[in-house]
Amino acid sequence: MKKLMNQPEHFVKETMEGIIAAYGDKVRLLNGDYRILLSNYETRPGKVGIVTAGGSGHLPVFLGYVGQGLLDGCTVGNVFASPSASKMADMIRACDRGNGVLVLFGNYGGDRMNFELACETVDMEDDIRTEMVLVKDDVASAPACEKDRRRGVAGMVYAFKVAGAAAENGKTLEEVAAAARHALENIRTMGVALSSCTVPQVGEPTFSIAEDEIEIGMGIHGEPGLEVRKMMTADQVAETLVQKITEDMPLESGDEVSVMVNGLGATPLEEHLIVYRRVHALLTQMGVSIFMPHIGEYATSMEMAGLSLTIMKLDGELKGLLSQTARSPFYTNYNK
Amino acid sequence: MKKLMNQPEHFVKETMEGIIAAYGDKVRLLNGDYRILLSNYETRPGKVGIVTAGGSGHLPVFLGYVGQGLLDGCTVGNVFASPSASKMADMIRACDRGNGVLVLFGNYGGDRMNFELACETVDMEDDIRTEMVLVKDDVASAPACEKDRRRGVAGMVYAFKVAGAAAENGKTLEEVAAAARHALENIRTMGVALSSCTVPQVGEPTFSIAEDEIEIGMGIHGEPGLEVRKMMTADQVAETLVQKITEDMPLESGDEVSVMVNGLGATPLEEHLIVYRRVHALLTQMGVSIFMPHIGEYATSMEMAGLSLTIMKLDGELKGLLSQTARSPFYTNYNK
Repeated sequence: MKKLMNQPEHFVKETMEGIIAAYGDKVRLLNGDYRILLSNYETRPGKVGIVTAGGSGHLPVFLGYVGQGLLDGCTVGNVFASPSASKMADMIRACDRGNGVLVLFGNYGGDRMNFELACETVDMEDDIRTEMVLVKDDVASAPACEKDRRRGVAGMVYAFKVAGAAAENGKTLEEVAAAARHALENIRTMGVALSSCTVPQVGEPTFSIAEDEIEIGMGIHGEPGLEVRKMMTADQVAETLVQKITEDMPLESGDEVSVMVNGLGATPLEEHLIVYRRVHALLTQMGVSIFMPHIGEYATSMEMAGLSLTIMKLDGELKGLLSQTARSPFYTNYNK
Repeated sequence: MKKLMNQPEHFVKETMEGIIAAYGDKVRLLNGDYRILLSNYETRPGKVGIVTAGGSGHLPVFLGYVGQGLLDGCTVGNVFASPSASKMADMIRACDRGNGVLVLFGNYGGDRMNFELACETVDMEDDIRTEMVLVKDDVASAPACEKDRRRGVAGMVYAFKVAGAAAENGKTLEEVAAAARHALENIRTMGVALSSCTVPQVGEPTFSIAEDEIEIGMGIHGEPGLEVRKMMTADQVAETLVQKITEDMPLESGDEVSVMVNGLGATPLEEHLIVYRRVHALLTQMGVSIFMPHIGEYATSMEMAGLSLTIMKLDGELKGLLSQTARSPFYTNYNK
């Protein structure tokens, strides 16, 4: 296995050491704990806190969105594994400014169980109010009639952005949670994978895809997708993703959306742009306009080749929150 | 071969169509020519123009640096191939505001030959003054006694940034060229490769590296490096790169540098940070401080796995120019 790492068991700690070495003026560890990252950016006094958590191996998700107008804190576990409830509770305590904390994360069993316990703990022990909002944007992970089983993938970045802006505007915990839920009702994602990733401590590819095949709808940890097909062109991939997403969330002429073409790790930026070009053409044909496209790597799966498409349907509120200033070491609202 | 593309011969045109579909408010084609990208950002009247050119397949290099405080224009060829002299001349004409154009590009035979011809043409036909500055930052590509043979790699991004800032400050063509040369005297890069890239129209990997080997000093088109070694740890890679660079450009206690850890395509951001962490420790031990680190993908080789390290030694002038505001669809000076 070829990875630029030292001992696999130090992978997450050393990643975090790199983040602190590079950006220690912008982010910090909570009490020297290499699993909990907090923002150093200036913010509004009394701002509602926003936190997330999840497994490592997806940078810039999750740690990369700790910043201004984004997240206040993030707890990470080992690669593709949930962090513990006690670390989540420590983070929530550190991110509460007296007005409560939004807990915004992807719908995975371990993360959900641990965050539920953490929220109970800080409620009972510290009297901290929390609201939990789960990201379930992956349309390939369950049919529409079982939406609550869907997993959270790249669309969570839009949810972080929208909730972060609402909190910066001085909204209450309930209002920030409502903004996140409103965003998520209008966000859908689906991806394709061309090759596997390798978890450092496993040392072998998680799965395999034949040299002439592509997996439609695969999850970001290698969860099985909808189907395996013979290799498709970029245009066919764009058409498939747009079709599946718009079947689930219909769009009509006059609608405005933001579009994210997110690389999973090994796919060149040129290829993201080739796919984006076709997505843009398809939406334009439907009379749908695109605001603030996001093209690049926002939520990865180590060195997996492939990409995902996220569409967020906008209204005045979501457009305003999306376009507000935000920055972290890994994300800048370039429209400003 | 697995690439998210359509016909290989349309790879570059469709990449450019994607750029225009996404960022058509910020950049534009010259007269609809899919090989010439110009900036739409506001700039100082009479500003000295800055242009580059080179083969496709390296995004964000080269097209990604057309923006504000960076490049005014960029011409690209096919993947890993130089564009023509006539397109370069068209671009230079479009980027001259009456005060001349800096032609700043990597030291490759085809690009050099074509830019020399283009500069002669615009001098004779249009009376446009140009200065050529070649980037030769790759220490692995030739020994110190043959520095002029060295190739240009990721260090060119720092040169674009410094020259772009000098031009925005109203400097003359000679002053902007001098700033670029001064930056380049203080910039060194070296990389390692773990796997090959695949040129779309070739359809086969350019070279191969055994599953347990790493190539030290490989070029961004797969040019042979200094040596092939058994797979190394991230710390050993960092130590090797810092040693080779500082042998060529000695650093001493009290020096300040900027450091770029640049992913070549398929290497996860976590691994960039693990390498950065060790580079940071080594420089700190030497008494050298780091300003404005750049960690991520700045100059790639399609889906090649590996990374490069660039060190730019700073003085007051270079630090000021580096930290000035700059933005493009692919680069933001996040320190602002």
